[in-house]
Amino acid sequence: MTDELVPGRELAALRALQSDKWRRFGPDVLPAHVAEMDYPVAAPIRAALAGRISRQDYGYPLPGGRDGGRLLAEAFAQRMADRFDWSPDPALVIPMGDLVQGLYACVLAFSDPGDGVIVLMPSYPKIREAVTANARRLLALTLRDDGERFAFDPAELEALASDRARLLIICNPHNPTGRVFSRAELRALGECAERHNLIVLVDEVHADLVYTGARHLSFAGLDPAFAVRSVTLNSATKSFNIPGLRCAVAAFGDRALLQRFSQRIPPRVLGDPNVFGLDATLAAWQDGQPWLAAVLTELEAARDRVVTVLRAAAPAIRIRAPEATYLAWLDCSGLELPVTASDYFLRAAGVALSPGQAFIPGGSACVRLNFATSPTLLEHILQRMLDALTRG
Amino acid sequence: MTDELVPGRELAALRALQSDKWRRFGPDVLPAHVAEMDYPVAAPIRAALAGRISRQDYGYPLPGGRDGGRLLAEAFAQRMADRFDWSPDPALVIPMGDLVQGLYACVLAFSDPGDGVIVLMPSYPKIREAVTANARRLLALTLRDDGERFAFDPAELEALASDRARLLIICNPHNPTGRVFSRAELRALGECAERHNLIVLVDEVHADLVYTGARHLSFAGLDPAFAVRSVTLNSATKSFNIPGLRCAVAAFGDRALLQRFSQRIPPRVLGDPNVFGLDATLAAWQDGQPWLAAVLTELEAARDRVVTVLRAAAPAIRIRAPEATYLAWLDCSGLELPVTASDYFLRAAGVALSPGQAFIPGGSACVRLNFATSPTLLEHILQRMLDALTRG
Repeated sequence: MTDELVPGRELAALRALQSDKWRRFGPDVLPAHVAEMDYPVAAPIRAALAGRISRQDYGYPLPGGRDGGRLLAEAFAQRMADRFDWSPDPALVIPMGDLVQGLYACVLAFSDPGDGVIVLMPSYPKIREAVTANARRLLALTLRDDGERFAFDPAELEALASDRARLLIICNPHNPTGRVFSRAELRALGECAERHNLIVLVDEVHADLVYTGARHLSFAGLDPAFAVRSVTLNSATKSFNIPGLRCAVAAFGDRALLQRFSQRIPPRVLGDPNVFGLDATLAAWQDGQPWLAAVLTELEAARDRVVTVLRAAAPAIRIRAPEATYLAWLDCSGLELPVTASDYFLRAAGVALSPGQAFIPGGSACVRLNFATSPTLLEHILQRMLDALTRG
Repeated sequence: MTDELVPGRELAALRALQSDKWRRFGPDVLPAHVAEMDYPVAAPIRAALAGRISRQDYGYPLPGGRDGGRLLAEAFAQRMADRFDWSPDPALVIPMGDLVQGLYACVLAFSDPGDGVIVLMPSYPKIREAVTANARRLLALTLRDDGERFAFDPAELEALASDRARLLIICNPHNPTGRVFSRAELRALGECAERHNLIVLVDEVHADLVYTGARHLSFAGLDPAFAVRSVTLNSATKSFNIPGLRCAVAAFGDRALLQRFSQRIPPRVLGDPNVFGLDATLAAWQDGQPWLAAVLTELEAARDRVVTVLRAAAPAIRIRAPEATYLAWLDCSGLELPVTASDYFLRAAGVALSPGQAFIPGGSACVRLNFATSPTLLEHILQRMLDALTRG
């Protein structure tokens, strides 16, 4: 297995990639920003893509005479049942290219300009964008470091829900903090949504990337009363490292909800699955688990290394070990940097991190670090950061 | 070149494809329905896809550090300028997965339920569906066989435009009749749109597939007054035989039009290009012309063969040689068949054709025949049809 991971992938090969991670910055920079992993993809995915290529099979997909979107829906439902004890109805699962499409479409379908949308902050930038770019009011439910973990205040949630809120967007596991919300936290969110008749959009794209000690709970699987007011967005692209293949699903918890959505945004507007995204996703969900398990072991070691090294050598940086995702949220306020933290590490260390202010207004002292790379590259990234601080 | 075409592709290889054309029906049926070609794809496309595979390069695309959508827009604009004497502004070109998304989105963005939408009939089924599924009124502008060609009546167009029409959808070259509209016809459409302040959606996906004697004119390139009220939809997927890769563009003829569109349908709802669709489309538009020229020669021979054989051996079938597309529209009314023409040929001949009633209400005596296959398979298809008619 390990020979499939980054040790088998040379830096030169990574630098030849045409992806955001490896093309955004120049050759002097080590990238740890955008959420791509440096690992090769799983063997079943490679086999599926190679088969498509060898057949030159680029017509309208109808694998085995079945509709591609339907196959995706069934594979997704099966995987949720197998792994997360949740059984979505495949008839209420629709395909799309990526989760951001689904977020935009649901915000448009289920709210009107001026309506409030509750978002856990800090937030994946495109969640915020789906709210603000569509002229909805962003109601920020801040996750605060309570000394042990990032958590929200139920009283704040209740106050926000009372402010003409129509939607609640939950990102769980949470990007960028790495939180895996507990049953109690999810119940608090769901019960508040019930009280205020909110529709809940749930981004669970990191559900597969959960570390020892934590357990992902699907919001819609917790309670039928939550399910009927929920749309769950998911994709194999994050955990199987194929974001460029563009394939995702939206699972509606209730037929009426899907009908209401379709009135405003006919699913045809979201597009049909492309053959490579379809093949890769089916292969990932059906045959990718051994690869994922091996990658999780690597990622957990990388996470532990990041936390250990930074806590020891840069105690002014506050870091909580993420329970999931391959992203670490670093609060560098204690460093009292003269510029934004991302600019500092880019210029002084040649390390590209995601800027905190993209995740939360006023967050420029924070950065998000992507640790899904090889042990070797990770050491270089950490050492460059520490060297900069030492020189500093 | 010819060794790249179907003679090099065995029937067994075609039957192994997972596409609509080769999976919709059983092994006793020769498919000539959905618009896929049986030809292998162009060498530059194969090279681009193979490069992506060999690099395992599935991150967020940023080829050479450039935005994928922007590269597509520029390649499209360049190709239109080179081939069709039209220079769209790349800043007003947005990517999407397929044209049907664009049709749906434009119908939603530029009209309201109950508004009239003029559609040339018979029509590609999903154009009609984009109108009727969104509760707009379909205003049918019928193309009638005037003894030489399929043409519309300008007086009918004028009457329809007066019936609370908001949109005019032009499919040019036209599916399923194969018409390439003349400058005079396009001007009549454009001037009517001006008089009645219609927005014009132009599906030009067959623009590359035009035969000797005809010339494709881009509607938006004919007159700046037409351009400003137009959205042109196009894709390399049809002419380069890669529909499953899902990559298309919409070119807005005016900034205000794109802004109006984005207010109602933020382009983010349409999705971002997938890496394979992006690579293949850039390769097709930039390096695919020699392949396309060779394929057009094959297709024109196939078209001529269909027309010659059917006119000679089945004169009761009315057929006009299509000026473009690899689709022939056959009016089988003269055969006085007891069932729909598509059912007849499927059951009696084992040939799958697209049913006429999907293109126009009451069109069940018509079928659409896809002749983009090898000379050998085409002979089998035609012979099976003629044998069925002989038997009776």
